[in-house]
Amino acid sequence: MLCEVSQLPNFLEKKVIVRGWVGHKRKSGKIRFMTLRDGSAVVQLVFSADELSDGEWASFSELKQESSVVISGVVRNEPRAPGGVELLVNSLEIVQIPEQHYPVTHKEHGPDFLLTHRHLWIRSRKQAAILRIRHMVSRAIRSFLDEQGFVETSTPILTPNACEGTTDLFTLPYFDLGDVYLSQSGQLYGEALAMALGKVYTFTPAFRAERSKTRKHLTEFWMMEPEMAWYDRDMTLELIESLIKHIVQMCLDRCESDLHVLERDTSALRNILAPFKRMTYKEALSWLNERGRALNFGDNLGAEDEVLIGESHEVPVFITGYPAKNRAFYMKLDDTDPDVVLDMDLIAPEGFGEIVGGSQREEKLDVLKSRLKDHGLPQKPFEWYFDLRRYGSVPHSGFGLGLERTVAWICGAAHIRECIPFPRMLYRIQP
Amino acid sequence: MLCEVSQLPNFLEKKVIVRGWVGHKRKSGKIRFMTLRDGSAVVQLVFSADELSDGEWASFSELKQESSVVISGVVRNEPRAPGGVELLVNSLEIVQIPEQHYPVTHKEHGPDFLLTHRHLWIRSRKQAAILRIRHMVSRAIRSFLDEQGFVETSTPILTPNACEGTTDLFTLPYFDLGDVYLSQSGQLYGEALAMALGKVYTFTPAFRAERSKTRKHLTEFWMMEPEMAWYDRDMTLELIESLIKHIVQMCLDRCESDLHVLERDTSALRNILAPFKRMTYKEALSWLNERGRALNFGDNLGAEDEVLIGESHEVPVFITGYPAKNRAFYMKLDDTDPDVVLDMDLIAPEGFGEIVGGSQREEKLDVLKSRLKDHGLPQKPFEWYFDLRRYGSVPHSGFGLGLERTVAWICGAAHIRECIPFPRMLYRIQP
Repeated sequence: MLCEVSQLPNFLEKKVIVRGWVGHKRKSGKIRFMTLRDGSAVVQLVFSADELSDGEWASFSELKQESSVVISGVVRNEPRAPGGVELLVNSLEIVQIPEQHYPVTHKEHGPDFLLTHRHLWIRSRKQAAILRIRHMVSRAIRSFLDEQGFVETSTPILTPNACEGTTDLFTLPYFDLGDVYLSQSGQLYGEALAMALGKVYTFTPAFRAERSKTRKHLTEFWMMEPEMAWYDRDMTLELIESLIKHIVQMCLDRCESDLHVLERDTSALRNILAPFKRMTYKEALSWLNERGRALNFGDNLGAEDEVLIGESHEVPVFITGYPAKNRAFYMKLDDTDPDVVLDMDLIAPEGFGEIVGGSQREEKLDVLKSRLKDHGLPQKPFEWYFDLRRYGSVPHSGFGLGLERTVAWICGAAHIRECIPFPRMLYRIQP
Repeated sequence: MLCEVSQLPNFLEKKVIVRGWVGHKRKSGKIRFMTLRDGSAVVQLVFSADELSDGEWASFSELKQESSVVISGVVRNEPRAPGGVELLVNSLEIVQIPEQHYPVTHKEHGPDFLLTHRHLWIRSRKQAAILRIRHMVSRAIRSFLDEQGFVETSTPILTPNACEGTTDLFTLPYFDLGDVYLSQSGQLYGEALAMALGKVYTFTPAFRAERSKTRKHLTEFWMMEPEMAWYDRDMTLELIESLIKHIVQMCLDRCESDLHVLERDTSALRNILAPFKRMTYKEALSWLNERGRALNFGDNLGAEDEVLIGESHEVPVFITGYPAKNRAFYMKLDDTDPDVVLDMDLIAPEGFGEIVGGSQREEKLDVLKSRLKDHGLPQKPFEWYFDLRRYGSVPHSGFGLGLERTVAWICGAAHIRECIPFPRMLYRIQP
């Protein structure tokens, strides 16, 4: 029976066929061992001269790393092996033995070498584990939102206006219509869709042409952006908290072995199932001031501040009520304190930084227009957006969750570039 | 109890609160009727003077189309009303009445007017139904593939090489690294991911800078691309057929009322649950020749030919074995007839054209290189791709499914531009 490696524990004492790629070989007396990966997991194979033809036994020594093979064998319990089982091989069919030695070995390679060989590096155990967890994070997001009646939809990547300046935007010519830009966020379109469909979300690539070279920057990344008619800020905080818990719970439940491969401290992930910490921006300032950071009202919290806050809490921390002047024009002013907005950032624990940002949106047209003016932005490109406030405006909120940042936190990955298959960075567009 | 309109049939005789936007009003004697949409569905509201305060009764007459309101009322069975229920209103709270009349009315509007008002047009009944079905198509795809152990992953939008010429590519400068291109397909990257993860799929925007202006062209569209290690062409045909049936079945099961709104002939959709028709390219030529189309071996089938084939069959039609010289270099040659490749196109019934295209991939490096040469393409940009054949090459296959084309077929929509929230076309980048 043809079987995926991840399913082998369900086939104890059964004869199965697995197909995949050769990992490491070793011998111990008259027994030969080899690891095999098939993309779903890794299993230890055991070769004994008694079980194989002479030809097959001889073939074993020819196998190089990443040779492709088809194996049949019997699944045996083996608590010491990865996955808790091993395969006693009955037959070995070689599909291809590479002519050259595989370039990505167990040696320490530099990041540039690994990124240049990213198409092969993704085969390695930890990288594949991260990519499977990335899928689980997406699945968890979709199952959670679909279950609650959200409609997944999409917003355009090619956008006509550089509404908030062109500094961080990729620009390209579009036929005879002049320059267009690659979207940084689908939010404004998401608001239009929420007025049409109620509760929506998008899950799309986003682009930021920032000349930054940090371990948290990608120029192309994936963002999930829900937008909900009738939601106020507090309902949105509740939604985000439930969503994040659902994501973590699904990863804990279904990616145990991948988290193990990554040597992730899962107790840190389990901690976040407790209620999240909430602080206002003003409380965060005091908290940071007490810890020696010289910040005043109106200052932005920097990456270092977010790391300090995150490292000091076992649960994610919501920060709400940033100064209105620092925040986007569409964020709703807080009626009880019009210097601040009804927003939220969510800071991951353990210093992984911000993973969610959002707000209640301003639903009053006159306030929206005056906020736009305060920000020095032109009105004309927003005329269509104003229509959402002209025709049946309702309270509504939304947020964006950065997929790779969330994956980096859940995986405990130091670099966000390992959390996307083919990272795009300031100096990296290959392969 | 707060309730979504689509859920009202589950709350017969119960008192509920619904929130949404006003549709059309009419009166009949001492009773007033109004439709209300909330994004999930539309319901008929019944206002009776006995049930409301004088103020509320007076408010009714002030309501304009797309006013936002909160309503409480009792759900009653009403087979003649949309959705089979109506709401007898107890209270009416007005959130906003537009100052101006809503521009998108029941009148016939021209396509340019509707596309310019796309942010509002999506609120109309049919457009919202299409977008909900679009979500269901995506959900069906993901549930089918996730269930079978596929890993959803992503391939880059920003790509470094214009491997097959720059004619139909959007081009943009990338920092100091020269020009890059917006991806038309993630396939080559998908192959690398299949060698790492076994069975993968991507679901991303794709871009085609074609100067075409037909009802089937978008410059930005969504494409779903699975890639499977160890799959040959025949396994891939089986997979596609099962997938398409699953999509249609889920839409029939869960989008009945939306398909009804679209006046979709669902018997045509039910027909496709029978086995799909398979013809080789050569058989398709004979079939077309018999119907008066003058085509010879080596000619491409045009959109008209695909429409003719699709209109003549009640089930989708696979066409396999196109001439090798017309097809991409990575498609595997058919050992039994090296003039043709192991590919497949799937033509939707009823003249909706091609919705899937794919092939088994050439796994032999020497054949791949010679095919590349035949196509007049340079080798250097493909060096990383060749590595997939150097290190553990295995038979593998994949395909691409165009989301909007599939949605157009399922919805019976004449124009693909209605199957994406904000269409991008040769002359359309707004809103």
